[in-house]
Amino acid sequence: MTDIAEKVVAGDIRTVARLIRDIDDGMPEVRKVLKGLYPHTGRAYVIGITGAPGVGKSTLVDQMIAHLRKRDKTVGVLAVDPTSPFSGGAILGDRVRMQRHSMDQGVFIRSMATRGHFGGLTQSTRSAIDVLDAMGKDYILVETVGVGQDEVDVVRSAHTTVIVVIPGMGDDIQAIKAGILEIGDIFLINKADREGTDKTLSDLRLMIDMDQKKYDRGAWKPPILKVQAVFDQGVAEFLEEVDKHAKYLAETTGGVNFRRTKLKVRQELGEMIKSRLIEEVIDRLTDSGEFERAVESIVEGKIDPYTACENLVFPALT
Amino acid sequence: MTDIAEKVVAGDIRTVARLIRDIDDGMPEVRKVLKGLYPHTGRAYVIGITGAPGVGKSTLVDQMIAHLRKRDKTVGVLAVDPTSPFSGGAILGDRVRMQRHSMDQGVFIRSMATRGHFGGLTQSTRSAIDVLDAMGKDYILVETVGVGQDEVDVVRSAHTTVIVVIPGMGDDIQAIKAGILEIGDIFLINKADREGTDKTLSDLRLMIDMDQKKYDRGAWKPPILKVQAVFDQGVAEFLEEVDKHAKYLAETTGGVNFRRTKLKVRQELGEMIKSRLIEEVIDRLTDSGEFERAVESIVEGKIDPYTACENLVFPALT
Repeated sequence: MTDIAEKVVAGDIRTVARLIRDIDDGMPEVRKVLKGLYPHTGRAYVIGITGAPGVGKSTLVDQMIAHLRKRDKTVGVLAVDPTSPFSGGAILGDRVRMQRHSMDQGVFIRSMATRGHFGGLTQSTRSAIDVLDAMGKDYILVETVGVGQDEVDVVRSAHTTVIVVIPGMGDDIQAIKAGILEIGDIFLINKADREGTDKTLSDLRLMIDMDQKKYDRGAWKPPILKVQAVFDQGVAEFLEEVDKHAKYLAETTGGVNFRRTKLKVRQELGEMIKSRLIEEVIDRLTDSGEFERAVESIVEGKIDPYTACENLVFPALT
Repeated sequence: MTDIAEKVVAGDIRTVARLIRDIDDGMPEVRKVLKGLYPHTGRAYVIGITGAPGVGKSTLVDQMIAHLRKRDKTVGVLAVDPTSPFSGGAILGDRVRMQRHSMDQGVFIRSMATRGHFGGLTQSTRSAIDVLDAMGKDYILVETVGVGQDEVDVVRSAHTTVIVVIPGMGDDIQAIKAGILEIGDIFLINKADREGTDKTLSDLRLMIDMDQKKYDRGAWKPPILKVQAVFDQGVAEFLEEVDKHAKYLAETTGGVNFRRTKLKVRQELGEMIKSRLIEEVIDRLTDSGEFERAVESIVEGKIDPYTACENLVFPALT
């Protein structure tokens, strides 16, 4: 195990902070550290929280931290913003709301925004989860902004995925897309004092039930809860549902950590291979100038891009 | 040129329909056809239309078709729904609205929903654009549902990208994310009879201006137009802005088709290489059983996923 890995396992805050920043920046050196940390992972319970901007995810996370701390659990938070490939950082304002936990040694909060390589965000979020896990955090909350494919991929690393909506979003419930529906283990209607809450609830119930019939999601029937995160209403009940879901997962895997099941490892390894492949090959083709020469040939009309692609890809493979 | 390619260039509707379906299904045989078609592409003007569900994109596209047909231009439409990885097809309902053009030989409308491989949707949309281009369509309208990274990637193939919003979306204008702002060449506020239109307009103007300062987007200043697509209000003015943008592009590229500039070709070839690489290598590792053996070793705790990944990736590369 490297020095850095040892310090992470010992819970050294500054080392963890720097390591996560290096992961976010896509530094290749972190791989050695992550290999060393891996045997120390697999203990944390990961909760993914996703939903459109403005639904109150940060407030919810803030209340979750407070509840989990009351249970004497340590908490790591990763706030992930993949929707902001260029400008980054809008999420930082939200972080301020969580500041009441900033002096609490049992809580560790970081933002991530990687968009470097393909799979960058999913890969780096997963690595950051492993770091917080190895550091000894009992719960890791992964908050993502938005409801796109990136977010879906990011929360796939979670044990329990929570979808947060508010009453009357958009014209109708269409705003919750099919892909998102399917990954939700628990649905929360936040700001549930607003008009349209019951309509949203019945629409959601209908959609989830239809979904349940279409795809076999096992015995777990995703509950839909009304909450008002800002007043801490319904948050305790919500965490009880998380406990139930954790119990359900443990039962279906025979006690094995869900993130160590074949299903999850297959997903994780597949994505890791893809991003590594691209990194290696694109770097080589760029460094050798072959990529740029192919671009010029296409621009000059000497070759079509389909053939140019094959001419670059096949020689790179054994 | 293959028989199929010849039929496409001759405008055979059934051949085009089948080819696009094969592209959507990820059939490897289409590559040969696409190579043959490539020399016949580069004439069409591609307009990407994106925005959240419910903003009225289909209605807008329907009106655009009518206006372009009045100008005696032929139109191809690709309706792309990447948000629906499993269930697909919600978009089909919308298609019905465009049926008034279904008997018009100058209009060709198709839906796509690929989500097979990495880059699947972007790649197959681009290929389908090439098909409609080779078929001789003057304008190709690419309508995407949603505002995630997939949609951003898809509309990158367009000459002009149009972002459609409605007044008072979500809590605030946050719903238009940074990544989306930057790709917009023209912004439309649809349903502009609704309350909050002027507020949305001034918020958008502010955001775009800030964006303009931060990143050099050249001399083009994205206009924001109020429209009511359902009453055909503002649509003609909108298409005049498209003309202006086309003129601007032609001037900045010295008359070269924007999609044939180095910038665009570089993007396109890079993505093509990535998806091809993944396809080849993942297929091999799966077929040989190496992938599954690695998964088992990880599950049994014999190896960490980082090392397993390297053991699979490096031998595959020359």
